[in-house]
Amino acid sequence: MNDLFSYIEYAKKKVEDRFDILIPENDDYASDVFKAMRYSLFAGGKRIRPLLAFLSADICDLDHYNIIDFACCIEMIHTYSLIHDDLPAMDDDDLRRGKPTSHKKFGEAMAILAGDALLTESFRVLSQVRCKNEARLAEIIREVSLCSGPYGMVAGQVADLNAETRRPDEKELAFIHKNKTGRLIECSLVIPALAGDLEKDKIDNLREIGRNTGLLFQITDDLLDIDGDVKKLGKTPGKDAKSDKTTYISLYGEKKSREMAYDLKEKTKCLIKDIGGNLILEQLIDFIYERDH
Amino acid sequence: MNDLFSYIEYAKKKVEDRFDILIPENDDYASDVFKAMRYSLFAGGKRIRPLLAFLSADICDLDHYNIIDFACCIEMIHTYSLIHDDLPAMDDDDLRRGKPTSHKKFGEAMAILAGDALLTESFRVLSQVRCKNEARLAEIIREVSLCSGPYGMVAGQVADLNAETRRPDEKELAFIHKNKTGRLIECSLVIPALAGDLEKDKIDNLREIGRNTGLLFQITDDLLDIDGDVKKLGKTPGKDAKSDKTTYISLYGEKKSREMAYDLKEKTKCLIKDIGGNLILEQLIDFIYERDH
Repeated sequence: MNDLFSYIEYAKKKVEDRFDILIPENDDYASDVFKAMRYSLFAGGKRIRPLLAFLSADICDLDHYNIIDFACCIEMIHTYSLIHDDLPAMDDDDLRRGKPTSHKKFGEAMAILAGDALLTESFRVLSQVRCKNEARLAEIIREVSLCSGPYGMVAGQVADLNAETRRPDEKELAFIHKNKTGRLIECSLVIPALAGDLEKDKIDNLREIGRNTGLLFQITDDLLDIDGDVKKLGKTPGKDAKSDKTTYISLYGEKKSREMAYDLKEKTKCLIKDIGGNLILEQLIDFIYERDH
Repeated sequence: MNDLFSYIEYAKKKVEDRFDILIPENDDYASDVFKAMRYSLFAGGKRIRPLLAFLSADICDLDHYNIIDFACCIEMIHTYSLIHDDLPAMDDDDLRRGKPTSHKKFGEAMAILAGDALLTESFRVLSQVRCKNEARLAEIIREVSLCSGPYGMVAGQVADLNAETRRPDEKELAFIHKNKTGRLIECSLVIPALAGDLEKDKIDNLREIGRNTGLLFQITDDLLDIDGDVKKLGKTPGKDAKSDKTTYISLYGEKKSREMAYDLKEKTKCLIKDIGGNLILEQLIDFIYERDH
């Protein structure tokens, strides 16, 4: 695989095949929650986080076999956060990736429980990661928790929630984006380096690449809300502007936001070259920069 | 400490002091979620699960220092489940331990996020458990996840949710209670044995004691709904009967339920004697059997 799109297909198939084993159908009294978990897990998505985990493993000279369960874990955490984010009390979304959201399909109570179940299972799955040095497992659990909880993704969601009632400034918007989207992406690149027992310099380098990639992802996401296509996006664009939400666009304007995205893209590609280069990851950065969905 | 009530006070103080360090106040943009987490963590409660963890550590000859973070972890998981259980889409409760529930105090969105944050943090805290044999950590993460997720507590919540619309039979009620309440209690006793690197027999024995204790706890909880006192309970009794919910009482009648509770109490005390005995744990079993709140 030396082009991005074959690699994306490979990563998708690999995590989806593994999901089918990790989160099987179940016929006991709790079967409904497994249905709901599987519904959201198999609802599509680009599997960007697993893809990043595999690419990081390549950079760290680690077999994908070692970190496949981490790749699944991080996608499960991403998926649970989408289920809870879509709830009426949160973003109140009816559609996700062109399909009814979990609470529209299974009811609110089941959607809450499906999210809780995915988050809990994600740590069981994570405990199966094969570390070169067993002592690193505690560090891996800690890192995933920090990146996804109230010091990471959840912190971003909380700040985002507050931002709906007052205008956040640049510092607050940076906090939201760094945490809400950035930390899971950062985590996707960092964990393979921990599992591969790499030295601190290289881990920090991958973390920096992850942070930039997350920010780039967020800025382009805001830009898609201006000029995205409902069919390609699988959700309604223009929602941010309509709800008067603070985004990169509302804060910096479209032109400046596009420049910021460009600079981030270039800087990140340099950082990748610094750690020895990885053509697919560089292509991915270009893809995120240029994406139309 | 050779009486139950001093031990309960000791366990409460120990976990609450540790919570204050583990989940500190926070003044960044996500400070609200820390407020909500701490509100529920410090809302009282008997800390039965941490207490069981300490008692199991005593039986396993393990210092409390080794498993204090597990004791906090299991109470955090219990607390998150209460926050989500109380939500309007779930049990829709306004009061918990005599205080407004999380969503009444902080709003629904924040309550969802506070639950998510507690669950995520619980695994970071768990990763700090000090195992005699480091290789046991993966097993500990797995056990906690199995007991609290869709094969454990969440499975019980899902089955309980379904039971609201149709009458569960004995088998289904047993499933609900085994999982909804029982698995966290079982886990509280099992993890110290894993951290202490005990042999399988002893672990199985503690698991059996945990299962019985959980069931006893549930039957007495159902009984309290008949004759509990609103002031002592901190919640409204009679709710089960009013909502025509299937409980041990509705399925077996009050007399048979009291007999089942008695038999379980006796059986569990025998099992405790089998593993060498522990007076405080035996007193606790009596206390659960006799409790009025």
